[in-house]
Amino acid sequence: MGSFKGHALPGSFFLVAGIWWTGKHSLWHATRRNKNIGSTRLASRASQRRLEVIENSVVLFFSLVGMLAEQFAAGGPRLQLYDFTEKHWQYLMNWQHATMYFFFGLAATVSLVLQTTEAAPLALDRLMLAVAFFNEGFLFFYHLHGRSMLDVHMHQLLLFAVFGQALVAFLEVFHRGNVLLELLRCTLTLLQGSWFWQIGFVLYPPRGPEWDLTDHNNMMFVTMCYSWHLAFAMLVVSTLYCTVSW
Amino acid sequence: MGSFKGHALPGSFFLVAGIWWTGKHSLWHATRRNKNIGSTRLASRASQRRLEVIENSVVLFFSLVGMLAEQFAAGGPRLQLYDFTEKHWQYLMNWQHATMYFFFGLAATVSLVLQTTEAAPLALDRLMLAVAFFNEGFLFFYHLHGRSMLDVHMHQLLLFAVFGQALVAFLEVFHRGNVLLELLRCTLTLLQGSWFWQIGFVLYPPRGPEWDLTDHNNMMFVTMCYSWHLAFAMLVVSTLYCTVSW
Amino acid sequence: MGSFKGHALPGSFFLVAGIWWTGKHSLWHATRRNKNIGSTRLASRASQRRLEVIENSVVLFFSLVGMLAEQFAAGGPRLQLYDFTEKHWQYLMNWQHATMYFFFGLAATVSLVLQTTEAAPLALDRLMLAVAFFNEGFLFFYHLHGRSMLDVHMHQLLLFAVFGQALVAFLEVFHRGNVLLELLRCTLTLLQGSWFWQIGFVLYPPRGPEWDLTDHNNMMFVTMCYSWHLAFAMLVVSTLYCTVSW
Amino acid sequence: MGSFKGHALPGSFFLVAGIWWTGKHSLWHATRRNKNIGSTRLASRASQRRLEVIENSVVLFFSLVGMLAEQFAAGGPRLQLYDFTEKHWQYLMNWQHATMYFFFGLAATVSLVLQTTEAAPLALDRLMLAVAFFNEGFLFFYHLHGRSMLDVHMHQLLLFAVFGQALVAFLEVFHRGNVLLELLRCTLTLLQGSWFWQIGFVLYPPRGPEWDLTDHNNMMFVTMCYSWHLAFAMLVVSTLYCTVSW
Repeated sequence: MGSFKGHALPGSFFLVAGIWWTGKHSLWHATRRNKNIGSTRLASRASQRRLEVIENSVVLFFSLVGMLAEQFAAGGPRLQLYDFTEKHWQYLMNWQHATMYFFFGLAATVSLVLQTTEAAPLALDRLMLAVAFFNEGFLFFYHLHGRSMLDVHMHQLLLFAVFGQALVAFLEVFHRGNVLLELLRCTLTLLQGSWFWQIGFVLYPPRGPEWDLTDHNNMMFVTMCYSWHLAFAMLVVSTLYCTVSW
Repeated sequence: MGSFKGHALPGSFFLVAGIWWTGKHSLWHATRRNKNIGSTRLASRASQRRLEVIENSVVLFFSLVGMLAEQFAAGGPRLQLYDFTEKHWQYLMNWQHATMYFFFGLAATVSLVLQTTEAAPLALDRLMLAVAFFNEGFLFFYHLHGRSMLDVHMHQLLLFAVFGQALVAFLEVFHRGNVLLELLRCTLTLLQGSWFWQIGFVLYPPRGPEWDLTDHNNMMFVTMCYSWHLAFAMLVVSTLYCTVSW
Repeated sequence: MGSFKGHALPGSFFLVAGIWWTGKHSLWHATRRNKNIGSTRLASRASQRRLEVIENSVVLFFSLVGMLAEQFAAGGPRLQLYDFTEKHWQYLMNWQHATMYFFFGLAATVSLVLQTTEAAPLALDRLMLAVAFFNEGFLFFYHLHGRSMLDVHMHQLLLFAVFGQALVAFLEVFHRGNVLLELLRCTLTLLQGSWFWQIGFVLYPPRGPEWDLTDHNNMMFVTMCYSWHLAFAMLVVSTLYCTVSW
Repeated sequence: MGSFKGHALPGSFFLVAGIWWTGKHSLWHATRRNKNIGSTRLASRASQRRLEVIENSVVLFFSLVGMLAEQFAAGGPRLQLYDFTEKHWQYLMNWQHATMYFFFGLAATVSLVLQTTEAAPLALDRLMLAVAFFNEGFLFFYHLHGRSMLDVHMHQLLLFAVFGQALVAFLEVFHRGNVLLELLRCTLTLLQGSWFWQIGFVLYPPRGPEWDLTDHNNMMFVTMCYSWHLAFAMLVVSTLYCTVSW
């Protein structure tokens, strides 16, 4: 995954997820507010549930594809974890990424079960989401040993978004349906997505010169850049929210 | 306690506690939901109370046994703490473990008192549990000075589960009966239990070659392993929950 | 901004903001309490809304002025960020400060929209404020590389106030109208303002001798000074509150 | 204050405060529970208020005495802070301690005002208490530069109790009258008090040999000791609570 594509791909996924969630939560908030207008087609419980089922099936599908790709794509471990001849672990990166996908797949599976049966409180889906994000941040946190300064810094900045998502999702367990928390989560998802792209551009520039990964000036620029990404994510979310509300 | 058995024993204890709690909370949640069906035998207040009394008696018994074992087993301090001839503290490990057991015993005692009398708000049992877990994490946190890298890392990972349990138990003081928090606590208890086993296998392998405790590759593998243990704990809890619900 | 004026200016701004907010929240709390007395002129919803619109217009105006000043004042970047001839980022400080102002401008804009339309829940303005303060603290946090000990320490102390404001504003999303949280936020705003002045006096003394920036004694004095600033801010807030209440 | 007495004195103060608070909160909780029995003499609002006034007057008195003692006792600064002849700050320790006392005095003053007038929400007294404890912890935190290992460690352990008290008092702003939080705060106050005594005994042993301040074994023993102090504090609080309840 140490490539431009390896960062652009999850980035795109989180961007799409962020936009989708923003649209979904804006729509539901709007229909909740003016029951009399939009309730005919969109606000009905059944269609909401169908939407959730579709969303989680897609997430489950992509996390399965991601796991398979990490395992069986060119240069993958093909389910081998330990090299017995040289006596060391191999392909640990691929296994870690597959583990991350697995937790998102798990969250989607649980959400599917919750939507189709009534086995457990609905808020469980947010708890599973919080666990998935926490797990992603946890693995990233211990991922960074021995890399160059700028590389470490950019991934650390990513952790603000990831742990922020985990925290907001956990708060949603207790404040379900709070549209502000939902939109904050969407914003952080978009931030994570666009920052993955940024990491790709800085660490593996597809064209143009390499960045100096030890220059402190670059680090300060990158920090500011993160604020801009946050502002951009907030802009996208508010534009979408206003469009849907109208 | 620096042995395979010394880690397998508390690990087994936490595994059993996690499974027991999962069953208990699942059952009570199920009986709360369909009052009309299961209420005849299991849901009655009196039987719940009796169950709690038994559970806490068992915890109290085992923590007493644990304290006595730490003190009087072969190589134990036999209540001696200071070696006056050589002027230094001795058996500090045993005393620290006995202290941990003592706090769990205290939590069980308080819970017993709460169940039999009505002296204080019921939520106190969760507060005592939170204190016991916090104390365990606190002692572990200052336990790790001067050990090898992998040893420190594995015990630090344990702290996520331990402090997580303390936090969830503290939240339960305010959100008592929230089945999601209860199951989250069960999951973390199982995680702690299985991770104790893992620590035992890695640091004191009962058979097979020793692990290289300074290899960074091993550290990354172990981190990922922790995620898998978490996934495993979640699987066990959800399976148990579904079984009991049906 | 590395000058006495560069710290006195934002300091004054936060001092004025703190005093203004204290007056506003005290007044509203007083009118809420004795509806029958003050409701004729001041408590009406319409006048409250007008006040908010004016306040946020002023904030928006000053953040625009601040951004323009950072860009086009003598020695500013004039919208240039990268020096292509020498191949390094330039004027990063000015850009970072402009970014901070931008987030406060954004919060004011959103608040204006919320007051004039009813597009979203009112609590959004506190969330935006929390984001603006968090962003300020975030940029300051990564701002401090390679400075002298006392300089770093004084800016770190500032972070207590900044992140404190972010936290309190975030709590206000859930506890809107809690006068204690509002006054706590005002106190921290005043603290931030007076501390900016203190930083200016210590690091860029307008007259008198320079401070020894590596003396540990100075650091301890400065820490205590921060407590006094906090006490002073609490005094100002309580005096204002009592005056308004009477 | 770097003496045995200098630690025993505040320790005794916190011990007395902890015991007093435990008695007070237990009594009020008991009277709230059985309104019909104890309400004749003790539960009346007026007597509660009188008790609070007395308590806060005593706290105010002692914090004034403390401030004066720090300033004017033998070897005190007598309100001088800067030595102009040698150009350095002097008596910083005394000033820092006086600052701590000042904040507790402030909290008591505010509480007095709240009890006699109805100027602000009652919960403000807990907020002021939280600020006073936070300020104490804050000053201690930056107090420890350049001391020996065991000294630093023992004061760091103290911070668990101090910041714990600040956190619990802050939670009480939102959950006022929750007896568990109140007793938890009492426990931490007792812990702080007895730990001050322990610090005095270890760092400035009144008789017997000096401790080796760099021995890691001592550090581990002291950590465990902290757990025992916590258990002791819990024991005292529960004994008092039960006695008062009966």
